[in-house]
Parts: sequence; C-alpha cells; structure tokens
Amino acid sequence: MKDSGSADTTSGPYFLGIDVGGTNIKCGVVSGEGTPLSKTSVKTETEAGPDVGLANLEQGARQAVEQAKLSIDDIVAVGLVTPGPMDIPEGRLLTPANMPEWHDLPVRDLVSERLGKPTAFQNDANAAAYGEFWAGQAKDVDSLVYWTLGTGIGCGIIVNDMIIQGAHSHGSECGHIIVDMDGDRQHPGTGQRGTLEAYAAARALVTRCREALAAGRASSIRSAIKVGAELTPKLIADHAERGDRLCDQLVMDTAMYLGVGTVTLMHTIDPEMILFGGAMTFGRNDAPLGQRFLHKIKGVVQERAFPTCAEKTEIDYATLGGDAGFIGAAGCAKQAHGGTSLS
Amino acid sequence: MKDSGSADTTSGPYFLGIDVGGTNIKCGVVSGEGTPLSKTSVKTETEAGPDVGLANLEQGARQAVEQAKLSIDDIVAVGLVTPGPMDIPEGRLLTPANMPEWHDLPVRDLVSERLGKPTAFQNDANAAAYGEFWAGQAKDVDSLVYWTLGTGIGCGIIVNDMIIQGAHSHGSECGHIIVDMDGDRQHPGTGQRGTLEAYAAARALVTRCREALAAGRASSIRSAIKVGAELTPKLIADHAERGDRLCDQLVMDTAMYLGVGTVTLMHTIDPEMILFGGAMTFGRNDAPLGQRFLHKIKGVVQERAFPTCAEKTEIDYATLGGDAGFIGAAGCAKQAHGGTSLS
Repeated sequence: MKDSGSADTTSGPYFLGIDVGGTNIKCGVVSGEGTPLSKTSVKTETEAGPDVGLANLEQGARQAVEQAKLSIDDIVAVGLVTPGPMDIPEGRLLTPANMPEWHDLPVRDLVSERLGKPTAFQNDANAAAYGEFWAGQAKDVDSLVYWTLGTGIGCGIIVNDMIIQGAHSHGSECGHIIVDMDGDRQHPGTGQRGTLEAYAAARALVTRCREALAAGRASSIRSAIKVGAELTPKLIADHAERGDRLCDQLVMDTAMYLGVGTVTLMHTIDPEMILFGGAMTFGRNDAPLGQRFLHKIKGVVQERAFPTCAEKTEIDYATLGGDAGFIGAAGCAKQAHGGTSLS
Repeated sequence: MKDSGSADTTSGPYFLGIDVGGTNIKCGVVSGEGTPLSKTSVKTETEAGPDVGLANLEQGARQAVEQAKLSIDDIVAVGLVTPGPMDIPEGRLLTPANMPEWHDLPVRDLVSERLGKPTAFQNDANAAAYGEFWAGQAKDVDSLVYWTLGTGIGCGIIVNDMIIQGAHSHGSECGHIIVDMDGDRQHPGTGQRGTLEAYAAARALVTRCREALAAGRASSIRSAIKVGAELTPKLIADHAERGDRLCDQLVMDTAMYLGVGTVTLMHTIDPEMILFGGAMTFGRNDAPLGQRFLHKIKGVVQERAFPTCAEKTEIDYATLGGDAGFIGAAGCAKQAHGGTSLS
C-alpha cells in the first residue's frame, strides 16, 4: 500500500498534463500531489493538420496555466499523452486511426519546443491508468489494471509505479488479447480475430445488437430505431434499464466478455485492484444497470479466477472520468522529470 | 539492452540457488555473474514429510558449496524456489499439488535457519524465467516472457529486472489465461475451463490424442499402444517425427494454442523476447519437430499479433534447461540480498 502523505495537496511543484484525442485536447495543471488546479479543452481539428492542432494545444495549455493563476515558469514539466500506436521512447506518433494527418509526427519534441519544458510522452490509456493510480480510485494500491471502455477497449497496467508500456510501445494493449481463439468476430480496424475488443467494445455491442435484430429477436429497441433513433450503446443501455430482455442480455454478455479478459489479467499481472472507466460503463455504480454490469463481471471472476485472486482483488469503477488522462499525463511528467516517484 | 559486463564470470560474491520440486531438489552455487559453479540433486521424499525433505535439502546445499570448493561463509545469500501456490512475501507454501505434506509450511525461514543465510523466496517458473533473463538466452534483453512446458504450463514474466509476481503471488500464472471462453476443456486440478493449460499442457496433449483415437482416427501410435507403450507426449512426438499425421497435427495444434497465448502476452506485456523451455519442447531447435513446433508458434504470431510486435519480438527456445530454476533462484538471492540489481 502506498503512503498517501498528508501535505498540502495543492502546493507546488506543478505539472501540466495534456491529453490529445481525435476530437479534443484537454489540458490541466496538476499539483505534485495529484490535485487538478485547472482544466481547459480545445479542438484538435485533425483534418486541418498538426500545425493548427499544435497551435490549439499550446493555447489550451497556456490557458490552463493562467486559469491556475500560475506562470509558465511555475511548471516543472509537461506530460503529453495521445492515442497509439506510437513509439514512446522516440516521442513519435505512428499511425493513430483517427488522426491520419498526424501520422509519424515527432509530437513530444514539437510540444516541448512550443512550451519550453521537458516533456514526458505516454499512451492515453496508460496515462489514464496512471491518473487513477496516482490520484484516483487506486491511489492506495501498488498495482492496477485499468480498463477503459469506449469505441475500442483501452487498458493500462501499473506495477509498483511502473507503467507496463512494452518493449515496442504495445504493452497494456489488452483490448487485443485473444479470448476466443476459434472465434470469427473481427476487429474492424486491425482484422484481428477473437480479441476482447471484437466482442466487448461499443461498436461490437452495436454489431451484436444489429445481428440479434436481424435474426428476429424481439426488443423494444426496434420501434425506437424505426422512428429514427440511432443504434448506440447508450440506446441499448436505456432499453436495458427499462427492462428490455434482449438489450439487457447484450449488456450482460459484454460484462461476461470483460470478466473473461479480467481473469486472464488476474492470472498474468495479479494486480491489487482492477478498475473500469471510459464512456461505456453503463451509468456506473449510481445506476442499477451499472451495478448489475459490475456484479456480472465479478461473478465471472468468482467462477473462473484462482480463489485467492477472486477473494482479494478489488474490482470497481474508476472515479476520475474524462480527467484521468491529463491528470495521469501530469503524473508521467512528475515521474520522468519531477525528481521522485509518485508514491 | 542490458550491459552484460566483462568481469571474471566465476568470481565472488557467491549465491546458493535451491530449486525444490515434487521429486528432486536441485542446488547449485552461482557466481555474481550468473555462472553455475556446482550442481547437486537430492530426493524430496515428500511422502516422508518436510523434516526429511529439509534435511535432504540441507545436505544437497552443503554438498553444492563443497563441490564449488567454497565454505558456507563464502555464500552471501540463498535463493529458494518452489512450486506454487505460495505466499511469496510471507515465505510460505500454500497448497502445492504434488507436495501435500508440505502444505502451509513456512519454508523460507526454515531453510534460512538451517543454512544460516538470508534467503529469498520465489515461484519456480518465475525463477526459471529469471535464470534465463540473468544468465541464459535472454541475458541481453530488458523484458522477457518465459513459458515452461510440462505436465502443466508455467510462465514467468520479467520487466526491467522485476519479476511480475503479483499482489497475491499469482502473477505470471499464464498457463491459466483463458484462450477459449466458451470452451469446455477443463484443467484436471482446478476445474478452470478454456485455459491455455487445458489445451496445451502435456496431459492435455495426451487427452486430445486419446480422444482422437477413440473417435477412430488412423495413427501409427495405435499399434505402439497395443504392444504396451504408455501414451506420453514423448511417444506422440516420436510418431510425429516419423511422419504420423495425427500425431503431427496434435503437436502442431499444441503450438497453435501456445501461439494464441503468446499473442495475448505480446499485447499485455509486449516483451523484448519470448522463450519456450521445459520438458515438452519437442527436441528444441536441434530436432526437425522442434523446429516446426517453433515455426508454427511464430506463424500464429505473424498472423494475429500487432505487426510491430510480430516483427520485432524475438521468439526462441530457452537454453538453461533444468538448471534455469536454481540459477534463477541464485539470481533472486542476489537481487534481494546482493546489494545491486542484476543488470
């Protein structure tokens, strides 16, 4: 268990976290204790190319510093996180799916030059995991597996303050573990068969719903679609909440797949805690569907994991929401350039 | 890449590695550079209880020191490794399957008292991985996944000189990752369904062979069994070598399952190197079947892993054989009590 300390949680040193996504760039100043002091969001405008995007990024970053009532001189270091694939040691994007104009961009050094700060670089899901590990739901544990559920399935693994980023920057890409070796479900982007993402990601949920409807399954969602509603995870969740049997089964199947992937990680990493975050968490603990979703995951773990792991591993929802990325980015900045480890 | 150094590889400090198995206990003195200087083997005699086994262990350990022409005073620390499940921080065995008389034994402290040395404790597969990482095939890399193929499937994961031993001493237990979530094949001991071990371990290979024969498949192995040969992985391998189609398919299916598990670990750990060791490696590189076995694993990786990982990850056979355990045990002793890390 980490020593959480008891100092003033908003004092310096200060770190600037920057979370670049395909649509938005979130920036925030974070104290050395992991407390966010400001938050800004600007557009990435990927289609306009990286020069525009990086100008927006710089503006958002400087606004975040101002909003925290600090000067850029107060910032020790910057943490920059982006979607993969990337070359983390080189500070370079490779071929992120939603940002074709940014391919092969040496983004870390470009940001470092614009802001005049040493800049740490990390994968966005790894950084979100690190945010939860540093300052969120996992702040008292020594090891964490963090799943982020959205269009795809991201993952971040932390063991003893070390992010498992891999020898080729593909560590913790656990959306791509194989859960059904003979399965034909494919990832729409990579073509990989039988992976967790091919079954449990948002787009896979929508695909499975579409297939069930095409196969003639009864569902209240049919009439919603007929009057123009778009088939989304949110729509499926709404109908599951209202008691639709098909939609409920689709959501619970998603939990089953994630439970299987979670068991595999318990037998690989055996972390102290496992967290679920991201957009597709079905209302989390405060909603009945979110509770049943987590309960189902835990049921699979009870059934299929080693009893010691099933009994002792904490499984819960993440708490930092969309801020986990920039907070974790700041944590990476502190780890790389702040002189000490986080714990 | 680690700095392998260039000092005299047989000079002190010296560490004593002890690898306890259900049948034998192997001991050896190892230099601070990872070179084994002696090797002894004594019987565990599990059925006679731990007092007898520990007396044998002490005898084997002291013989190893003598054989190395050293005195026990020359030994800095001892590394002790055993099968799991275990509580690594507590130095205690829990319920190792083949050693019922040793259940709940505080084995680390008992050994430490007998030999009068600080004693590090580790899982045997993790230690074998650490042996290869320190002094074997993986000595020049920074991260390793090591599979050990035998009755069961063991695994050890090393990242930056850290063994992934887990928060509950169940880290790197990757024989128990789920590769076929709907699969009915069960682990005979734990009852876990769809795990890698349920498909690819030695006993699973024998089971699959038995099923194929019962289903009427033609094979030269039938007549061998009819005249009294025991159905073992070795027998299956021999017939595969001689061109029997069924036996060859059973061996290549084993490679396919291991390839799937390997892809999952490439997308989780993304190590620099992946090694296969243990008794069931089909003659390794020097035999045609061993070559085809590894080739099949690599083919699955080429097909199903991220291209960067498939291209850059080294996949090979381990080289230390049955000595990996005591060498790795000595490495753990050095890491815990030798003052510096291995690299």
